[in-house]
Amino acid sequence: MITRIVEIRKGVLKKNDLLAAELRQRFREAGVFTVNLVSSPGTGKTMLLEKTLRALLHAGQPVAAIVGDLETDNDARRLAASGAPIRQINTHGTCHLEAEMIGQHLSGLELEGLDFLFIENVGNLVCPSSYDLGEDIRACLLSVTEGEDKPLKYPVIFNSADVAVVTKMDLAEACEFQRDDALRNLAEVRPGMRVIEVSAKTGLGMKEWLAFLNEERSRRRQAPPAPEV
Amino acid sequence: MITRIVEIRKGVLKKNDLLAAELRQRFREAGVFTVNLVSSPGTGKTMLLEKTLRALLHAGQPVAAIVGDLETDNDARRLAASGAPIRQINTHGTCHLEAEMIGQHLSGLELEGLDFLFIENVGNLVCPSSYDLGEDIRACLLSVTEGEDKPLKYPVIFNSADVAVVTKMDLAEACEFQRDDALRNLAEVRPGMRVIEVSAKTGLGMKEWLAFLNEERSRRRQAPPAPEV
Repeated sequence: MITRIVEIRKGVLKKNDLLAAELRQRFREAGVFTVNLVSSPGTGKTMLLEKTLRALLHAGQPVAAIVGDLETDNDARRLAASGAPIRQINTHGTCHLEAEMIGQHLSGLELEGLDFLFIENVGNLVCPSSYDLGEDIRACLLSVTEGEDKPLKYPVIFNSADVAVVTKMDLAEACEFQRDDALRNLAEVRPGMRVIEVSAKTGLGMKEWLAFLNEERSRRRQAPPAPEV
Repeated sequence: MITRIVEIRKGVLKKNDLLAAELRQRFREAGVFTVNLVSSPGTGKTMLLEKTLRALLHAGQPVAAIVGDLETDNDARRLAASGAPIRQINTHGTCHLEAEMIGQHLSGLELEGLDFLFIENVGNLVCPSSYDLGEDIRACLLSVTEGEDKPLKYPVIFNSADVAVVTKMDLAEACEFQRDDALRNLAEVRPGMRVIEVSAKTGLGMKEWLAFLNEERSRRRQAPPAPEV
């Protein structure tokens, strides 16, 4: 039984990887920089995204977002108030987004006119790590409320991310957040990982986060496309 | 492809259900009351469990716990300090506990001498809902830090639970926790659901939680075994 499951799972992941490669090519040709936000439920992905969309639009940078949830369109409605085009994916029981779902929700989004496309994944620290969505970078959020040991307990997703965003810094003191422990644990699962500490609520660190996004976009979009391996 | 996955998945769940029924029978015969704790990562399952184990032991009630994590034995070491026997399961990538894993980790636990066996599931609001572990009751934790809308976004797991435990109440004010919204959302996915608000840190609500556990234990263990359907 287990062998069959592993085989089927490998097949699913292989199919996902092929679709993700197609998406990545499409995003690259359109010149849109794509960010996949992953984390536990409740780390503040939507709040960070809301403030990010508003700031980028305010700076004259066109953006859009795709948000994934098992149920409800709460996040899409909340994010649409920013003025950016938003697509909601309801996975109805599936615990992660897949490349195929992204492909199905791109219609009507004019990718060529966008600087950034954000994808807010389903809140889950396990399965989203295995599903490439064709993104340029994966950002893994870690909230100060959820415990400094999460990178050690869920090493794969933190290891697969390009940047860690420590969220809800305004609650750090109330939660007795042990910053040194958190940073050491992040470094243990991914040595040298870039870490950005933010509070979307107070604005702390948002300048650094936005600068990081634009730097990465410039760096990767100006460089010639990497040869296919 | 999808049909095959659904079939395989049904097979896995059916096998799990059979093993869970065996476990349930074993727990019932031993007279131990079993509680499956599920939630997002970082809602404070381990802290609640730590305080619960200490309080029950202090009251002369023998208890034990099985804790699941992808990696690390941090939780087992932390809980063992209570004096209760603890078993750690490392799932190495699997995003939930399964009945088979529980069965494999019962050796050496003298179930007949226990009042309670707690199972701390992997932090995940999706997949643990599908895996019966033979427990008497399932408790779903919701922390005040993670947003009042989580029951609506992850309805299956809240619906499958017998009790909702709202955790980290000491942070409610700092997080601007909207209590009425949270209670309404819980009631929407499971009308009439018992809700207990606690802070394991300050002790708030712990008396109610412990009383609930003992009441459920008395009620279910004194009643004659329900006929098999």
